[in-house]
Amino acid sequence: MIRSADNDKLKTIRKLHDGRWREKLDLFVAEGEDLVEAAWDPEFVLVAGEDVEPELLDGVSTLGSGARVIGVYRRRWSQPGGDLSVYLHAVGDPGNVGAVIRSAHGLCDGPVVLGPGCADPWSPKAVRASMGSVFARPPARAGFAGLTGALVALDPRAETSLRELELSRPAVVCLGSEREGLPPGLPGTRASIPLRAGGPESLNVAAAAAVALWEVANRMAAHA
Amino acid sequence: MIRSADNDKLKTIRKLHDGRWREKLDLFVAEGEDLVEAAWDPEFVLVAGEDVEPELLDGVSTLGSGARVIGVYRRRWSQPGGDLSVYLHAVGDPGNVGAVIRSAHGLCDGPVVLGPGCADPWSPKAVRASMGSVFARPPARAGFAGLTGALVALDPRAETSLRELELSRPAVVCLGSEREGLPPGLPGTRASIPLRAGGPESLNVAAAAAVALWEVANRMAAHA
Repeated sequence: MIRSADNDKLKTIRKLHDGRWREKLDLFVAEGEDLVEAAWDPEFVLVAGEDVEPELLDGVSTLGSGARVIGVYRRRWSQPGGDLSVYLHAVGDPGNVGAVIRSAHGLCDGPVVLGPGCADPWSPKAVRASMGSVFARPPARAGFAGLTGALVALDPRAETSLRELELSRPAVVCLGSEREGLPPGLPGTRASIPLRAGGPESLNVAAAAAVALWEVANRMAAHA
Repeated sequence: MIRSADNDKLKTIRKLHDGRWREKLDLFVAEGEDLVEAAWDPEFVLVAGEDVEPELLDGVSTLGSGARVIGVYRRRWSQPGGDLSVYLHAVGDPGNVGAVIRSAHGLCDGPVVLGPGCADPWSPKAVRASMGSVFARPPARAGFAGLTGALVALDPRAETSLRELELSRPAVVCLGSEREGLPPGLPGTRASIPLRAGGPESLNVAAAAAVALWEVANRMAAHA
């Protein structure tokens, strides 16, 4: 039973709140029973009251309410691929990155490919927002030059609606940051999610990704 | 120029970070130029360097980076209604509530109706996540007994897919908390967003709302 905050495992967990340490150690943290159950083999797991004093585990948790269990895991990456996948460019909010990983796990067969400037999918917030999907379908890392297939570039100003788009496989739905959008050099067909007149300029990036994956997946299935 | 943190306007802003004060004063805060531009007439607005020392305004901002402008506004509520609207039950995350308000503003003509247990749409996080849509289309408050029209109850375990549903107008898309779902007494037709085998049990509630509004709005338009 760990009874001191000076313990090496607790120190490792604390370090892994910081992205530079996650990169350096190639490890990350999952907190809570649901995530630990969804996870692959851990480096170690600490259970409150069994392995460690509950207050000490709470002390290294990023959850306001504390955690009953925390696991430390080695990172894994997928390769881009699949009939339908997602590419994110400079999506900086970890909650959005995690939510897109969850939606992609539910709606398409390929991974989420993270381009430059994206939030770290292994941060506690992104792992939590993925609700364990980051374990079932780890993200890939690539620039858009590393993608294969027809690129569907979501762009709120595009005149072509997602519903009018000619689809072919494999397809990659590409989304940029809400402020900057996709880089001008990205090839592929620009398409929009048409919104009501007087409405917002765009949807939240995780909402837009879910709508686009739903629409493209259904139309691919209809044409199968 | 405000030069003291003891100033009454700064104190009001600080109080309004707390939901009980928002309820008591019937006011809320919007931070940043984009939100203040999207807003209705303010009780007051403070601009850094014009009305107040920048450090003092940063000191009452909930943004990590501080704010150049903060406005204080009286709350407004809509009435339930519209051909297509959304009802949320016990959706506790303010980021999700704000994102649904934004999606509804883009995809349907009715407001987001907030049932019991929902996060406060006037909290700084929800206002920010709405990206100003909370001003363009203020939410309504009602239990599900206060809704009129056909209720489409999203339920990940429902056998009927959203795509198979018979639609009529007006329609209200209803979503519950991710853990608990909708209350058993909610009338209407249960429908699911079908996800891949082996995928997550459900989508994030804001992603699910966007998909459902997109699908229902498009099918309503096709049958118009």
